[in-house]
Amino acid sequence: MTSQNPIFIPGPTNIPEEMRKAVDMPTIDHRSPVFGRMLHPALEGVKKVLKTTQAQVFLFPSTGTGGWETAITNTLSPGDKVLAARNGMFSHRWIDMCQRHGLDVTFVETPWGEGVPADRFEEILTADKGHEIRVVLATHNETATGVKSDIAAVRRALDAAKHPALLFVDGVSSIGSMDFRMDEWGVDIAVTGSQKGFMLPPGLAIVGFSPKAMEAVETARLPRTFFDIRDMATGYARNGYPYTPPVGLINGLNASCERILAEGLENVFARHHRIASGVRAAVDAWGLKLCAVRPELYSDSVSAIRVPEGFDANLIVSHALETYDMAFGTGLGQVAGKVFRIGHLGSLTDAMALSGIATAEMVMADLGLPIQLGSGVAAAQEHYRQTTAAAQKKAA
Amino acid sequence: MTSQNPIFIPGPTNIPEEMRKAVDMPTIDHRSPVFGRMLHPALEGVKKVLKTTQAQVFLFPSTGTGGWETAITNTLSPGDKVLAARNGMFSHRWIDMCQRHGLDVTFVETPWGEGVPADRFEEILTADKGHEIRVVLATHNETATGVKSDIAAVRRALDAAKHPALLFVDGVSSIGSMDFRMDEWGVDIAVTGSQKGFMLPPGLAIVGFSPKAMEAVETARLPRTFFDIRDMATGYARNGYPYTPPVGLINGLNASCERILAEGLENVFARHHRIASGVRAAVDAWGLKLCAVRPELYSDSVSAIRVPEGFDANLIVSHALETYDMAFGTGLGQVAGKVFRIGHLGSLTDAMALSGIATAEMVMADLGLPIQLGSGVAAAQEHYRQTTAAAQKKAA
Amino acid sequence: MTSQNPIFIPGPTNIPEEMRKAVDMPTIDHRSPVFGRMLHPALEGVKKVLKTTQAQVFLFPSTGTGGWETAITNTLSPGDKVLAARNGMFSHRWIDMCQRHGLDVTFVETPWGEGVPADRFEEILTADKGHEIRVVLATHNETATGVKSDIAAVRRALDAAKHPALLFVDGVSSIGSMDFRMDEWGVDIAVTGSQKGFMLPPGLAIVGFSPKAMEAVETARLPRTFFDIRDMATGYARNGYPYTPPVGLINGLNASCERILAEGLENVFARHHRIASGVRAAVDAWGLKLCAVRPELYSDSVSAIRVPEGFDANLIVSHALETYDMAFGTGLGQVAGKVFRIGHLGSLTDAMALSGIATAEMVMADLGLPIQLGSGVAAAQEHYRQTTAAAQKKAA
Amino acid sequence: MTSQNPIFIPGPTNIPEEMRKAVDMPTIDHRSPVFGRMLHPALEGVKKVLKTTQAQVFLFPSTGTGGWETAITNTLSPGDKVLAARNGMFSHRWIDMCQRHGLDVTFVETPWGEGVPADRFEEILTADKGHEIRVVLATHNETATGVKSDIAAVRRALDAAKHPALLFVDGVSSIGSMDFRMDEWGVDIAVTGSQKGFMLPPGLAIVGFSPKAMEAVETARLPRTFFDIRDMATGYARNGYPYTPPVGLINGLNASCERILAEGLENVFARHHRIASGVRAAVDAWGLKLCAVRPELYSDSVSAIRVPEGFDANLIVSHALETYDMAFGTGLGQVAGKVFRIGHLGSLTDAMALSGIATAEMVMADLGLPIQLGSGVAAAQEHYRQTTAAAQKKAA
Repeated sequence: MTSQNPIFIPGPTNIPEEMRKAVDMPTIDHRSPVFGRMLHPALEGVKKVLKTTQAQVFLFPSTGTGGWETAITNTLSPGDKVLAARNGMFSHRWIDMCQRHGLDVTFVETPWGEGVPADRFEEILTADKGHEIRVVLATHNETATGVKSDIAAVRRALDAAKHPALLFVDGVSSIGSMDFRMDEWGVDIAVTGSQKGFMLPPGLAIVGFSPKAMEAVETARLPRTFFDIRDMATGYARNGYPYTPPVGLINGLNASCERILAEGLENVFARHHRIASGVRAAVDAWGLKLCAVRPELYSDSVSAIRVPEGFDANLIVSHALETYDMAFGTGLGQVAGKVFRIGHLGSLTDAMALSGIATAEMVMADLGLPIQLGSGVAAAQEHYRQTTAAAQKKAA
Repeated sequence: MTSQNPIFIPGPTNIPEEMRKAVDMPTIDHRSPVFGRMLHPALEGVKKVLKTTQAQVFLFPSTGTGGWETAITNTLSPGDKVLAARNGMFSHRWIDMCQRHGLDVTFVETPWGEGVPADRFEEILTADKGHEIRVVLATHNETATGVKSDIAAVRRALDAAKHPALLFVDGVSSIGSMDFRMDEWGVDIAVTGSQKGFMLPPGLAIVGFSPKAMEAVETARLPRTFFDIRDMATGYARNGYPYTPPVGLINGLNASCERILAEGLENVFARHHRIASGVRAAVDAWGLKLCAVRPELYSDSVSAIRVPEGFDANLIVSHALETYDMAFGTGLGQVAGKVFRIGHLGSLTDAMALSGIATAEMVMADLGLPIQLGSGVAAAQEHYRQTTAAAQKKAA
Repeated sequence: MTSQNPIFIPGPTNIPEEMRKAVDMPTIDHRSPVFGRMLHPALEGVKKVLKTTQAQVFLFPSTGTGGWETAITNTLSPGDKVLAARNGMFSHRWIDMCQRHGLDVTFVETPWGEGVPADRFEEILTADKGHEIRVVLATHNETATGVKSDIAAVRRALDAAKHPALLFVDGVSSIGSMDFRMDEWGVDIAVTGSQKGFMLPPGLAIVGFSPKAMEAVETARLPRTFFDIRDMATGYARNGYPYTPPVGLINGLNASCERILAEGLENVFARHHRIASGVRAAVDAWGLKLCAVRPELYSDSVSAIRVPEGFDANLIVSHALETYDMAFGTGLGQVAGKVFRIGHLGSLTDAMALSGIATAEMVMADLGLPIQLGSGVAAAQEHYRQTTAAAQKKAA
Repeated sequence: MTSQNPIFIPGPTNIPEEMRKAVDMPTIDHRSPVFGRMLHPALEGVKKVLKTTQAQVFLFPSTGTGGWETAITNTLSPGDKVLAARNGMFSHRWIDMCQRHGLDVTFVETPWGEGVPADRFEEILTADKGHEIRVVLATHNETATGVKSDIAAVRRALDAAKHPALLFVDGVSSIGSMDFRMDEWGVDIAVTGSQKGFMLPPGLAIVGFSPKAMEAVETARLPRTFFDIRDMATGYARNGYPYTPPVGLINGLNASCERILAEGLENVFARHHRIASGVRAAVDAWGLKLCAVRPELYSDSVSAIRVPEGFDANLIVSHALETYDMAFGTGLGQVAGKVFRIGHLGSLTDAMALSGIATAEMVMADLGLPIQLGSGVAAAQEHYRQTTAAAQKKAA
């Protein structure tokens, strides 16, 4: 293990030098004003990345899973009804968490490879005349299947049904990499983590609460202390935390937001789309299919690639690691063994992407798949060449 | 803020160079075998630090507060009875957490400055003929008051009462700094964090479960997902995590345990005692008293120092920060304004300790307290001189 | 500039994480015994890398150029005769340095792309009946042309001529990457730097002196102080330096030698050869030629690649940097504009090498060269696949 | 060795976090424009620190000793006459270097503890009617004795004698810590290093050449290549170096100059004076004397402290290291065993300084010197208290 190769798991991502250095800092007094000068800009930065002016942002020493728990325990009470779709491992897990917390989850079984079924949601919400459904859960980007769902459509479903349910969105592997519009889409709680689009080590749950979600906090009866946003809000007002804050990660988050906003959100999204398109061109050249069934579902942060029937996709991941010291993602749950995943989120250059594609080719060839060496690389190269800044300027 | 001064808050501690470097690492694939080779030695190392061979250790991306929540949600059900003592801010907060989770807490109000009242516990437990009390909570080291409690005495109280209650111990600011004997003392759950005796950045809750505690997990009905140790145990068995693990901190924990065990636990405790004794000699020379009311209660990881009546101790902390860029701890809760705290845990040299003592003297003199400059330093110097390894050898 | 792409200049190389961390250290007292415990293992490590038991090694805060100056000023006097060959920019510069120091240099003009002409050396040395030639200079690996010379052959030339001249070898871009046998080849002074095979930042000249070279020091009259090895030797004997030593780099050198020797010198050389062969397979697939005119001259640390007549090779380097943020080497001196260089020394993985090859393909295609995208990558992939450890084991 | 104590050698200094991070960087292409964007601001920053608008600055991968060699080899020819004073180890070494380079050095033996004898220089220069003396050497701050010399007085001596000799000043341990005015004092070559006032690791010689010194380069016949400023100037004009530049240190120098200039040079000097005055107050309280014989000679970067007759000062240094892991400086040359040195240059806080003073007290007491524990600390505390920014503001 040289640690010199880029990694292609769909998060944690490759950490840029400046983020490494921002996180790695000596201990400061987290009850001193110095901490406040680090915390508040980070909160403001996250708001900009979420495209919200109204939400309150909370940062927990935790993970995206802790972010989900923050969302439900702060707003719901045992027995509350929740609507969700199960179209991949991460939506499955959120549903499971709700059930373990005594919530009553209605979920739409959705093929893995499809997105959140906004039409079905509209039907169900319309049928819920008593407005018993308190929350709609949606996974913006299913990391397990590489499927991006249309959150605006889910909002339209709620609006069409004139339903007051809250909309909670898992944006763990989309926020900071793909367009996310908290205010415009009427998202009530947005959940993400430090280790994806923010390009930091894991360890932070990042959660935004809309004013409507904040109201729900007052009546929610699920027990919570560590994840209680009321303690957190009280702490923030005093430049502090209810417990020891993860200072280095918050410092890193600050650096991350600065970088993302300096580049420009739309540029960040376009950069992810460009790199992802190159990977998809390679997949196409290999004669393989994505798990995501339609182009509008293609994720710009991760591609789940179907292998031929009868072939165990996990072999690709283990062989890549053992032989070429390169990390790809395995398939999870229903698609375990059927797909392998190439993560392409965070800070990734053309050269890095090509090294992943080239290695995947060697691996598949080693394992006897009918892959022509260089074919995916050539397709990606062609895409990257034609979409460099210089090429774009020339074309214009 | 130069970041060059040592900090004297009672954690997070000054992070030694080697821990900084172990934590600061490039992203690896946390689903690869590489991660397992990092995780298991860390778990084994923690067991040795806890002095347990029987317990199972769990590492959550969280804090000590999350460790408390792990303890109660994995073992208890709504309405369960808990016995505790309130003798400082941190015991208070754990009680508060229990109440917010719907537990029925009997707590003994104990003067802040006293330890856990094992005698009273014995009476209460003996009176609890029906064994309704499921858990006894004890704070080994009250970080707010600098009071170390006698956990062996609590165990004796349980045994004398022939009571089957579980014993949960908050060792956040003792473990790794002061003697802790999980197996010998019959501790069922031990809770600590990365940022104290382990000398790491914050971000890890470290929790040990005895076999008896593990049994309780099966029947506990408090909702939990993020902190569910069953998911965690399943993950560990597969060299993984139920979500993204805090890889850098786990790598750091490994380095930390290696260092602690190489130095030898008893040597680590003796080192803390030696440094703490020097600080206490200084306090004595200043004519001030500790919050802890008797020597056997003196904590070797933090000293809470009472200031003269009518003087606001918080001024010491703010003046130290603003004028000398040095961080001490304020008083919390009942003792806010009445004490200031000098943390002396983790990796601290004589010179570092003396710099804190010397700065405290300047601060108190600046604020008009009748402190003779150099007096506390001289007392500490005398202690340090006479207890160096060389001096000890000579004396022997 | 993301700093995330590997660099493909022929040094400084990509610095592995562990070397970065070894170099980046807090200040220590360089007059304390701590320094000696760092220095002497580094000196011993270098001796093993040089394959010498007899030589003395000196480490100057300088560069390879400073190493050359160390060699000549410590052994020669104004007007002394030196024999050399000019077959590239670095041999040219060493000759220039000799002339600027008042030495009388006989040099054989040799085509750039050829190696040191041992036959011509033998003729010249044989003709030098009076043994006026004091030193023979040889550049083991011409970084400018990617040509490896046969130092054993130069030794044979000296022996055949029964000539007592000293043999000084520039191994800046070979030592630690390609086989170098100081004792066996009778090398009297070997010169290298920290930033090539040792994978460290620049800043150290590393020089080995044979016993015969040490004797010459006594009579040498070229002025020297900074580079005087007598002061250095006196310092080393006292665990110190005649001036402030570059402590971090020496600590790094220690780590570097440990890593190289743990991998095994022959394995390190084989690894370089394997990576280099993949690059050469790509060059061949592109229909291009190396500057080195025969396979036995091919360097395993850098390839200088000839571009078609009339095409400016510098465009490749500037376009790669501007468009793909990737660094290749330009041609220097006689071959400026005629070649571009791919450095492949130090710690480089298959994936890293492929990313360089793939980027070079995009660059050449962008600039209108008749390169088929993916062609070089496919050739290199094929080579890498067939020569992985696993493939080798299978074949055996 | 914990590496957590500050060091009190008179350089290398304690490296602030931000300098550590600036130096520790991944490899970049030093022939790319990126390097020029690092180099030129560093050169400009140094000019401001030197208080020169006319000089050209050169940065060699070397040390202060290399800076001396740069000065003489670029401006002088064998047999040239040089005037100097020998009042400490570093002035002695520069004289020795001149002699080893064949220069004809007239030097004034000056008591160690005195400064450069400007009066004697004036007499000698006045007597040199033929203007044979080409260069006057002066050591601004004798690191061995803690003596600051009056460079303006040396300039006045030259002017009074109407002598055209060049003035070369060793400012290794003064520049960046104490006032230095290259243009105003008519300094022709100023020499320093990275590891003192610039707070960086060692490895850079920093040299400024006045226009008059640049003229002398054309006729100088001492051999030089590595240190030839003509090659360096040619390189800089092309954003490059004649050999591999120490990129990390240059990046660090940039950060260092930014920090120094942001603080303000006069503030930096005042800060050094304040910290030094505290150390001197401690020395006085101990009943000891400085090596520097008069207050106007006291160095603000290092104090050499005389121990009682018959006591071996080296014991202080070795005992401090072995027992308290703290590094002080030994006496050198004539004052070996008679003084020990406390370095107080670079980034040092009150608390750091007090930790050094307190440790020195313990050491001296351990060794039987009649030192009252806390006495020096109290004197320094008093000084620091009364000179904090807040105290100053109040007094005003």
